[in-house]
Amino acid sequence: MIYLDNAAATPMDQRVLTAMMPYFSDEFYNPSAAYLAARRVHDDVATARHSLAKIIGAKSAEIIITAGATESINLALNGVDGAVVTTAIEHDSVLATAKARGGVVLPVNSLGQIDLESLRSAITDQVALVSVGYVNSETGMIQDIRAIADVVQDIRDDRRQRGVERPLYLHTDASQAAGVLDLNVSRLGVDLMTLNAGKCYGPKQVGLLYVRAGIRLKPLIIGGGQEMGLRSGTENVTGIIGFAKAMELAESTRGSEVKRLAALRNQLKSYLVQHIPDIKINENQRRNSPAILNFSVAGVDGERVVFALDERGVQVATGSACAANKGLRSHILVALGLSNAEADGSIRVSMGRFTTSEDIEAASQLIVEVVSEQRKFGVMDA
Amino acid sequence: MIYLDNAAATPMDQRVLTAMMPYFSDEFYNPSAAYLAARRVHDDVATARHSLAKIIGAKSAEIIITAGATESINLALNGVDGAVVTTAIEHDSVLATAKARGGVVLPVNSLGQIDLESLRSAITDQVALVSVGYVNSETGMIQDIRAIADVVQDIRDDRRQRGVERPLYLHTDASQAAGVLDLNVSRLGVDLMTLNAGKCYGPKQVGLLYVRAGIRLKPLIIGGGQEMGLRSGTENVTGIIGFAKAMELAESTRGSEVKRLAALRNQLKSYLVQHIPDIKINENQRRNSPAILNFSVAGVDGERVVFALDERGVQVATGSACAANKGLRSHILVALGLSNAEADGSIRVSMGRFTTSEDIEAASQLIVEVVSEQRKFGVMDA
Repeated sequence: MIYLDNAAATPMDQRVLTAMMPYFSDEFYNPSAAYLAARRVHDDVATARHSLAKIIGAKSAEIIITAGATESINLALNGVDGAVVTTAIEHDSVLATAKARGGVVLPVNSLGQIDLESLRSAITDQVALVSVGYVNSETGMIQDIRAIADVVQDIRDDRRQRGVERPLYLHTDASQAAGVLDLNVSRLGVDLMTLNAGKCYGPKQVGLLYVRAGIRLKPLIIGGGQEMGLRSGTENVTGIIGFAKAMELAESTRGSEVKRLAALRNQLKSYLVQHIPDIKINENQRRNSPAILNFSVAGVDGERVVFALDERGVQVATGSACAANKGLRSHILVALGLSNAEADGSIRVSMGRFTTSEDIEAASQLIVEVVSEQRKFGVMDA
Repeated sequence: MIYLDNAAATPMDQRVLTAMMPYFSDEFYNPSAAYLAARRVHDDVATARHSLAKIIGAKSAEIIITAGATESINLALNGVDGAVVTTAIEHDSVLATAKARGGVVLPVNSLGQIDLESLRSAITDQVALVSVGYVNSETGMIQDIRAIADVVQDIRDDRRQRGVERPLYLHTDASQAAGVLDLNVSRLGVDLMTLNAGKCYGPKQVGLLYVRAGIRLKPLIIGGGQEMGLRSGTENVTGIIGFAKAMELAESTRGSEVKRLAALRNQLKSYLVQHIPDIKINENQRRNSPAILNFSVAGVDGERVVFALDERGVQVATGSACAANKGLRSHILVALGLSNAEADGSIRVSMGRFTTSEDIEAASQLIVEVVSEQRKFGVMDA
């Protein structure tokens, strides 16, 4: 099988599993226990946290380990005291949380960009948080987080001058950015950032929320007071150890991986554009993740393409996995202005650490074959 | 080292790790994805969920997988619409959540039992949830959940007659009961039940909340709508597979383990009572977990005993790990009516699957030695 759905899930890197192994059955101690062996585990957790912090340019105390990106996002968006502004192409968890709070959802253009002046107008004095994804999970389109941070800073300055006391924070879901983009929180200008170990060859069900020092969030889960009081429950020792290892690997190979993935993406894109008439590449040519190629062929049924490719040994996605599961048309592609036929005929190819040029060569040909065949059938009931 | 702190953390059973291994790097797929390999993972998750459900006498749709007992408890207590009644000897997460909602905290007697008539009076028409732990984590004292369920049922019947519409539920935190007590939800008469994989030789940071069909809870974490909409986020595949295996092992060996642990506990208790003058066993002789022996020696410092035993190769706890970490006197022992000196001089020995009679023999002697030595020092600053 050729796995090209790395945006949905990444296999755990063997080096990550190796780092975690001692902590399952040998160093399994509760890090809060008083004896030496437990204190050693406590120290190992602290070292891993420090390593995660360093990679994003933060301090250890600013790293809150969670059970994944969805929890991090819920903690960030529900933790603030005030309204939320976000965009129409965010992950379900951002949109669901924002909507539950009466949030403002900004439209995007066909390149997935929000209009900075519209953003400025949307940030009324009731707004406490702006949440904008860094890399879009379906198309790989990259938001200009720094430009958004500058708008947020302007408004903060203005509030200060006017004596408006409500703090204003910028959160980004960077789940798809690890190993591909710069995650330095100061350079990005973010106050809160979500990362997901399960999307970067680390353990599933492990995430983090970066919380800039001085920000007071309301916790979702209370009890023992772990994770700076923001996330109670015995620390996830294997999770944090594996997450740190995964991020170290992702960061240390980032430069070469980006080049390698960009070459694979070009190889795939060139072949598909040459061989599929009327193909539409859903991308922001200037700012796109090298790991994701999303395209539409109006008139074919994306789900049928996925099934037919699966039979021939290629695993890809249509829409997001969650949306696909519910038989819904991707809200992201609709928000980008795709027609229903284009959204229904969309395929996401997401490459990763273990994708080779040979994989892409074989997959390209199979995609072209399957799309040509499916074109003859047309769409059943869209 | 002789590990006698199984109530704080259990080592993962190798059979559990073996069951999980394929899902880390090979069958790592997102269970929501459309291709066959992912649907197989989806099916494996469903099988594991069914197995967990069967063990507690529930249906698959009633099992909500969480990231541990603390999250399950927060979901149960925050998910209902109304006040909460609980007891003074619950885990921090129950007390913190209940207090944040203005809950009523009932006192217990020296055997850790609540008075059923006081419970009845405390359940006013504003109350939506009664939360009582099944096995106390510090002493092993067992609550009569069935008797409490009968009171709750009486009040439900009375509410129905009087036309009071607020539902009333009974939640139990059964984290320390797996592998030791009957977990059948119908026999217990509970509507909600928390279990923790990390306390029964399964993976850490994995728990479940049993939610009886028909109960509507407000989720803590929203997004993709996984876990019946009660806990969004990509399913924890390795976690649920490991949890199911752990519970299957715990349940299949329960009968013989209870006998074996009870014998070990008797062996330890007899030796300590014989050799430590003025020792006080903190237990409910009629209803106590065979895995936990908690005792007090007024005048010694529990923390010093823990450190001295650690140096000689025995790992035990004083108070709960969380409380110990914060240098607090255990709220549980105080609620049981222990004097400050007794609480400060308390030690919890918790045995488990890998504890042998030789371990207990050696540990008994070392505990007696250390306690005698520490008696000479007395307490520093209690």
